[in-house]
Amino acid sequence: MSSERLIYLPLGGAGEIGMNAYVYGYGPKHKERLILVDLGVTFSDMESSPGVDLIFPDIRWLEENKSRLEAVFITHGHEDHVGAVGHYWEKLGVPVYARAFTANLARHKMADQGQPETEIKTVSAWPVVTKAGPFSVGFLPVSHSIPESAALVIDSPAGRVIHSGDFKLDETPVVGEPFDPDLWADVAKDGVKALICDSTNVFSLKPGRSESTVGPEIEKLVASAPEMVVATTFASNVARVKTLAEAGERAGRSICLMGRAMRRMVEAGIQTGVLTSFPKVVSIEDARGIPRENLMLLVTGSQGERRAASAQLARGKYNGMQLKEGDLFLFSSKTIPGNERGVIRIMNQFSEMGVDIVDDSEGKYHVSGHANRPDLERLQDIVNPQMVIPNHGEHRHLREHAKLSKERGRESIVAVNGTMLDLTGASPKVAEFVETGRTYLDGSVKIGALDGVVRDRIRMALNGHVIVTVILDEDDEPLGEAWCELKGLPEQGRSFAPLLDVVEADLTQFLGRANEKTLSNDDKLETELRRIARNTCQTEIGKKPEVTIIVSRMS
Amino acid sequence: MSSERLIYLPLGGAGEIGMNAYVYGYGPKHKERLILVDLGVTFSDMESSPGVDLIFPDIRWLEENKSRLEAVFITHGHEDHVGAVGHYWEKLGVPVYARAFTANLARHKMADQGQPETEIKTVSAWPVVTKAGPFSVGFLPVSHSIPESAALVIDSPAGRVIHSGDFKLDETPVVGEPFDPDLWADVAKDGVKALICDSTNVFSLKPGRSESTVGPEIEKLVASAPEMVVATTFASNVARVKTLAEAGERAGRSICLMGRAMRRMVEAGIQTGVLTSFPKVVSIEDARGIPRENLMLLVTGSQGERRAASAQLARGKYNGMQLKEGDLFLFSSKTIPGNERGVIRIMNQFSEMGVDIVDDSEGKYHVSGHANRPDLERLQDIVNPQMVIPNHGEHRHLREHAKLSKERGRESIVAVNGTMLDLTGASPKVAEFVETGRTYLDGSVKIGALDGVVRDRIRMALNGHVIVTVILDEDDEPLGEAWCELKGLPEQGRSFAPLLDVVEADLTQFLGRANEKTLSNDDKLETELRRIARNTCQTEIGKKPEVTIIVSRMS
Repeated sequence: MSSERLIYLPLGGAGEIGMNAYVYGYGPKHKERLILVDLGVTFSDMESSPGVDLIFPDIRWLEENKSRLEAVFITHGHEDHVGAVGHYWEKLGVPVYARAFTANLARHKMADQGQPETEIKTVSAWPVVTKAGPFSVGFLPVSHSIPESAALVIDSPAGRVIHSGDFKLDETPVVGEPFDPDLWADVAKDGVKALICDSTNVFSLKPGRSESTVGPEIEKLVASAPEMVVATTFASNVARVKTLAEAGERAGRSICLMGRAMRRMVEAGIQTGVLTSFPKVVSIEDARGIPRENLMLLVTGSQGERRAASAQLARGKYNGMQLKEGDLFLFSSKTIPGNERGVIRIMNQFSEMGVDIVDDSEGKYHVSGHANRPDLERLQDIVNPQMVIPNHGEHRHLREHAKLSKERGRESIVAVNGTMLDLTGASPKVAEFVETGRTYLDGSVKIGALDGVVRDRIRMALNGHVIVTVILDEDDEPLGEAWCELKGLPEQGRSFAPLLDVVEADLTQFLGRANEKTLSNDDKLETELRRIARNTCQTEIGKKPEVTIIVSRMS
Repeated sequence: MSSERLIYLPLGGAGEIGMNAYVYGYGPKHKERLILVDLGVTFSDMESSPGVDLIFPDIRWLEENKSRLEAVFITHGHEDHVGAVGHYWEKLGVPVYARAFTANLARHKMADQGQPETEIKTVSAWPVVTKAGPFSVGFLPVSHSIPESAALVIDSPAGRVIHSGDFKLDETPVVGEPFDPDLWADVAKDGVKALICDSTNVFSLKPGRSESTVGPEIEKLVASAPEMVVATTFASNVARVKTLAEAGERAGRSICLMGRAMRRMVEAGIQTGVLTSFPKVVSIEDARGIPRENLMLLVTGSQGERRAASAQLARGKYNGMQLKEGDLFLFSSKTIPGNERGVIRIMNQFSEMGVDIVDDSEGKYHVSGHANRPDLERLQDIVNPQMVIPNHGEHRHLREHAKLSKERGRESIVAVNGTMLDLTGASPKVAEFVETGRTYLDGSVKIGALDGVVRDRIRMALNGHVIVTVILDEDDEPLGEAWCELKGLPEQGRSFAPLLDVVEADLTQFLGRANEKTLSNDDKLETELRRIARNTCQTEIGKKPEVTIIVSRMS
């Protein structure tokens, strides 16, 4: 056996849904030449990451081994696969390969961050391959909820690996290439060492439905609507956007795209030739002059995002358009877990306007872009890999997918972010564990998830914040009284006096009786002042706030 | 027509799911004698109400009209119907009527808040009625997901009103009275003026399923489990708890209840005679000595609540019990929208332990406690009310329920919290709008939702907090430099120097050049300091934090 090895190291997306980033390496131990597959983001939430703009995988390991990195390959254009490319490219400095539609989006991401768009290289689909060190990588078309999704055929001296990317087995996908089982069988015919495979829908027990099944239902709905129709879906689901637009067109409606992403995606589809036909769209200015019963708006914001077109329409006007009683709003989408509150909020705002809301609760107006359990089984049968490594999923998805694979007689293992696997032998082995985590984009700064910044924010949000100021003279004697500011705390508590007065009085009383040893020692003084402020609050209002102490010494 | 009128005023629960509180009144305008139906709570979330312990309806209107209030009636024992009784009783000071099981829970709520338990009066079911001013109120048994749920038959000189409370039409509810259509028809036979009706499931198109349908599925699942079985459901769903326990017993397992609410609810069921039989339970101490394959734990925390037994088990040990590879964890529950993240978190923690997780995604192990659309229709047919007033639902639910009722030829109207309806005539009329809102329990203090306390917390969480201290001497000259503290902010930004240093330098520079007019005026000085701190942060880290300015003047 050679001393070279084939390694796989997920840095994001394994043990979570979002921010995909997978490293492959081949070569002598610790000298493997590397490629990175996908470089995505995940979205923050108020509960765990308030104020954070975006969440990236922690790629320190890759930065430390940058000299070994050959290239980045992006499977498709979803944010959780391509979203960090502009933010991270400078740290990696290698070419980024993608198919035309994905490359189009990636170039915008580069430009947004002032990075060179020319580093995004457009490559054609399989059988075209790109050499990257010991690897040869081909983009094998597969259906998903965005055009030109691809699995990667990753060849190295250790054998062929197929990295599925996000996929479904759709033979009638409306836009883009159908899943082609014969092509896949052909790629796999000489043996596949490992299938690294999307796990998100492993708990969905029925075979996935084709994108083409939603069209007739949408068409019926739109045809029967008496007033304006507004529909939302993921803008990147160009096939769905097209289906919606065509349903509008057939019902004699003018189509208007609202929201930056909606226009961007259709534009990218046309520019790259993915969208060969699309109904004529009218500008928002023109739309304002069209009778509502002849109009259909396609808007961003299927997840209830506050700044998207849907949420703005729900709050009132957006670009001069306003919904009215009798209008129809269609969610041609599913709500991602965690986004329910935002979606429900806009549903109720529309309801208050008298707008009729239709969503996918009856399973008519949306289909998933991911392979369900029977589809995963079918793909395994076609590819017949020696081992299956589940990726893109929470722990429960990876575990179930590994279990499923083992039941079908294949080698499998759960490898979460940071778990480096050695795939060289007949079965996957854990090679080592690499420290990983999450990196937050906060304003314009990247911070570590565990830096304490977000922890402090959460504490202030849960507990409120008391700021205590004390001034001491040259002899460590208090100059005047203690002075407080309260933020995020009730004005009064148990004693019915202002909380501020009660806390200041207790602190001032303490200062009056504190001995020189305490007054002369910043740490001791701060500890005591903090303790008193917290205890007084506990007595008065039943909670212990965060406390910041500012001791100024005149000298 | 008499000058007396019958009014209905929702203070909570209409336009939202949670914190039910409905006022009925009869008498001359503005002199109506009043009763209150239900007094519930709703739960806070990090996104909209960080740090808040509980949310109550805003009952100021009722306090202002306290002298006209005769009594409170509680339909059933769920938190969103009875949860605020202990917290608000002192402000109302009237007797609270409920059936035995509900009363048992309500007394504990009173005791927890140091209120007199004797003010909770147990009443029997219809045909027993309680007089309260011009009203006569009877508790009409109906099935729901907690024992002894009741609709209220509210008679006044203006006619009979039926307030459904939460209900489903279950003729085999496992515990408690089945829904009895003949009894309801009999109550309604002389005419019902208005049906005030639960709307939560109006979008569920199939008839609701009976509680008895989950037993056989649960039994199969438990019987086939090789190791320990742990199951969670709402503790108040005593029927489900019993079903789970009996499934365990039949599989030869000892049953152990974990979590305060789980023990409390079973105890209340037994004390009030609602639970006539329940498998023998073992203490946690005894459970530790029983082989895992002979044990079944019933635990609190179906919504992923951090402090509940399920979440503690997911993090490691709880009362000495620990889950292991091969154990089964069953969610015999649905996840309430907004709680997905917490539930998914514990699912993944269990997955990491090798525990098999089963939930209701296939519709086998849970049924709803609310009436679906066909059930709402059926109830209308049985009761045949002149008007239907939808309650307990978000705006979209109320609107749909009103639409449904009108389609069936009944008068209906959407009345959200604060909308006082006059029900005296043949159709409901809006009488007036009353100012309402939400009251937060924050620690031990009640604060208004719009007081700004929570707004400040959210701002600190999103933006971080800078505290600026400046000391000026008797001549308004700065004593030393400006001094900052940062909380919830990155340590450094664009210039790669500590953010603290950069902000302090900019502020100190400003102080050096500020004129006397600015330095002598607190407002001006604060405005300028705040502006500089925010702008410097914007430049350095791309976000504008909250700023607290503390100016100390030596005098």
